[in-house]
Amino acid sequence: MASSMAALFAKSPAPNLRFPETRRSNIAGGTAFRLRRVPAGRAARARCGLIEPDGGKLVELVVPEGPEREARRREVLPAGGMPRIKLSRIDLEWVHVLSEGWASPLRGFMREAEFLQTLHFNCLRMLDGSVVNMSVPIVLAIDDGQKRAIEGRDRVVLVDANNKPVAILKDIEIFKHNKEERIARTWGTTAPGLPYVEETITNSGNWLIGGDLDVIEPVKYNDGLDQYRLSPAELRDEFTKRNADAVFAFQLRNPVHNGHALLMTDTRKRLLEMGYKNPILLLHPLGGYTKADDVPLGWRMKQHEKVLEEGVLDPETTVLAIFPSPMHYAGPTEVQWHAKSRINAGANFYIVGRDPAGMGHPIEKRDLYDADHGKKVLSMAPGLERLNILPFKVAAYDKTKGKMAFFDHSRPQDFLFISGTKMRNLAKNNEKPPDGFMCPGGWKILVEYYESMAAPDGSKIREPVPA
Amino acid sequence: MASSMAALFAKSPAPNLRFPETRRSNIAGGTAFRLRRVPAGRAARARCGLIEPDGGKLVELVVPEGPEREARRREVLPAGGMPRIKLSRIDLEWVHVLSEGWASPLRGFMREAEFLQTLHFNCLRMLDGSVVNMSVPIVLAIDDGQKRAIEGRDRVVLVDANNKPVAILKDIEIFKHNKEERIARTWGTTAPGLPYVEETITNSGNWLIGGDLDVIEPVKYNDGLDQYRLSPAELRDEFTKRNADAVFAFQLRNPVHNGHALLMTDTRKRLLEMGYKNPILLLHPLGGYTKADDVPLGWRMKQHEKVLEEGVLDPETTVLAIFPSPMHYAGPTEVQWHAKSRINAGANFYIVGRDPAGMGHPIEKRDLYDADHGKKVLSMAPGLERLNILPFKVAAYDKTKGKMAFFDHSRPQDFLFISGTKMRNLAKNNEKPPDGFMCPGGWKILVEYYESMAAPDGSKIREPVPA
Repeated sequence: MASSMAALFAKSPAPNLRFPETRRSNIAGGTAFRLRRVPAGRAARARCGLIEPDGGKLVELVVPEGPEREARRREVLPAGGMPRIKLSRIDLEWVHVLSEGWASPLRGFMREAEFLQTLHFNCLRMLDGSVVNMSVPIVLAIDDGQKRAIEGRDRVVLVDANNKPVAILKDIEIFKHNKEERIARTWGTTAPGLPYVEETITNSGNWLIGGDLDVIEPVKYNDGLDQYRLSPAELRDEFTKRNADAVFAFQLRNPVHNGHALLMTDTRKRLLEMGYKNPILLLHPLGGYTKADDVPLGWRMKQHEKVLEEGVLDPETTVLAIFPSPMHYAGPTEVQWHAKSRINAGANFYIVGRDPAGMGHPIEKRDLYDADHGKKVLSMAPGLERLNILPFKVAAYDKTKGKMAFFDHSRPQDFLFISGTKMRNLAKNNEKPPDGFMCPGGWKILVEYYESMAAPDGSKIREPVPA
Repeated sequence: MASSMAALFAKSPAPNLRFPETRRSNIAGGTAFRLRRVPAGRAARARCGLIEPDGGKLVELVVPEGPEREARRREVLPAGGMPRIKLSRIDLEWVHVLSEGWASPLRGFMREAEFLQTLHFNCLRMLDGSVVNMSVPIVLAIDDGQKRAIEGRDRVVLVDANNKPVAILKDIEIFKHNKEERIARTWGTTAPGLPYVEETITNSGNWLIGGDLDVIEPVKYNDGLDQYRLSPAELRDEFTKRNADAVFAFQLRNPVHNGHALLMTDTRKRLLEMGYKNPILLLHPLGGYTKADDVPLGWRMKQHEKVLEEGVLDPETTVLAIFPSPMHYAGPTEVQWHAKSRINAGANFYIVGRDPAGMGHPIEKRDLYDADHGKKVLSMAPGLERLNILPFKVAAYDKTKGKMAFFDHSRPQDFLFISGTKMRNLAKNNEKPPDGFMCPGGWKILVEYYESMAAPDGSKIREPVPA
């Protein structure tokens, strides 16, 4: 499970921590992490600009408004006879992700060479020999009939649920969609019941179509949250405007309690101690597809807003924005994507929790992934060497202090672990958690969410996992 | 299936062929291959020595004979109380592989950091930031009881089936053996019936034990073939003795017919044209575990000997040796291991066939892997950039010439495809293949093999796949 508790840094690593030697060999490895400390005083000089996007340049695929976009729109009129592919909701989320450069240097849905490198190596080799991380396939499936209709063409138009053209996919390449192999290599299991697989792979076509995207209709959701959907370019502008000399990203898909907040404020403190002058937090909830029992984005955003309003996190040093990617629940494979995409948005520090992007095994009574593999794999992932990985350990409610705090192994009796189930039951029954567990306004939102979920007749409600 | 026909180079690539650009992006990829041609005249200078082993130095783990080995032998006497792990036949093959440095820079069974990098990235990062390829886990499984018996110790002794100590595994690390994840990420399927999985994973323990090996008993098989089991160091000596300035490796686990031979002689011709003075062929049958329906090693070696005796391949420019690794049948993942290990033996050219290390899907009516993925994945694999990958295309029996030849798409009617099944049936029934398909002595061995397999009462024999 993704951490059901707040969590904090692992024991402070030594300055300039490197991988320990795997005894007698010079293979990098071990379970320690890269926290490349910049000695105080050198930080400002070392961080005169934001981290470079993967591939050196942020990819942006939206055709500029004006004559160029108009020309493209005429090109895709039905009279032109360009083959059409209707996008699912998740396909459209990927167009969004690609269009803004979260997946830089990808310029569209993967062709086979990119797909194979992603599946086998979790990274792509650039022509100059350098390597960028890419761990989840970003692909578009089509069925046999669509393939027949497209063959011989070099481009297709992608349309939304209302048949409105969204993008042109050009220089296309069609290749086999071996679903079993894709699933096995991405999730490390083929057990039935993986949410993303059931939602978007199982019933999809036997072919994948790759190509470069020209987006002619920027993706909007009109759900009252679009103002939070900042692109990597917009985020970079915001960080620059705020004079950030370090950006630390916190990926989440759950309500923020005070343990999370403690972790984030503690991170800023540590970065200041390291010599950074103005570390900025990117509080970055995932906004794309999530499984049915996750708390919906709208409620999460309301809760996050309260956390900022009530000063649990400092609005001056926090940027709250939505990460538009769908969720794979692919554990160690997916956490690389979560980290890599934030490099593209300007983050040079990434906070990784216990069992990131994990979930229960769909058919066995155990977690799908080892809780430590996420941070281990992330720390060794090719193409992420530039990113500072910040692992954290579990925090809990300290009864002696009446607040969330580091778990202290020397006095376990003082700590209360409030599990996701416990938190859920408290909120469901409109009970109060211990003071200091979550800010009152944020808790109220949670309670309201569960009330809204309760059936009018009081029958059993769906069981979301709020933490 | 592994190529059931001889196969030859794909169309001659342009000199200094590079990956074509994936349109508009600078991501390396595409389906062309690296044949870095060394312009004539520069070859001798460029190839003054053999290719370096992975990690810069060939790993050799056999403790030198004499006082040191004697001391180690005393250390592992039962009276010393060092915990013992009994090796399966396949475990012992891996000790053999590791002990001679085929897996350089690995110094023993993988610890978790190496295991995770292998599963997720098919490569290991070295402390200097460089990367070596490593695609199949080389691990040793233990069960719960063994784990309990070992805990708190820093070394164990590995013993063979007769309880004879073979090696010490030291600085050990015990970690979880998530079999499902290991299988899914290595084979891209978890379908029941994968030979290596059934043989060595399904019933193995829930833990893996990694560490560094001190081998105190060099692995021998006493099957009359040990003289063919040259270590990477011995092969390098042999290549040097022969003044090789290029070494091209041909991995196989099937009888050699004249199509294979044509490919190998043609490769030498091409290398000479490229300016190499003395390219040497490493004819390198796999000698470890193979599935029940493969032709056994002993028969294959007899057949290979005939091919050399009868001059189909030139003994002057061919080194016939046994590659001690067990077979995974893991297609694109395993072909990287087959290539990487040959770098360590001094090969700088590697011939890759159609669907290398492939097999039929264990429960579906299709090949497990796309026939082209092996060479594509190999051409893009991290850590294999130094190796020249030589893809080949199918050859067939040219009826107009009475011999195996390139398949010529302009006159398909002239070619006869002799499938594995057809070859098997011919040999089984003691019939003759067309003249020029295989040298007579080699064919005779095959016929003898099938005769030896036939039950005395003439009932149905097991069906090996000879090609």
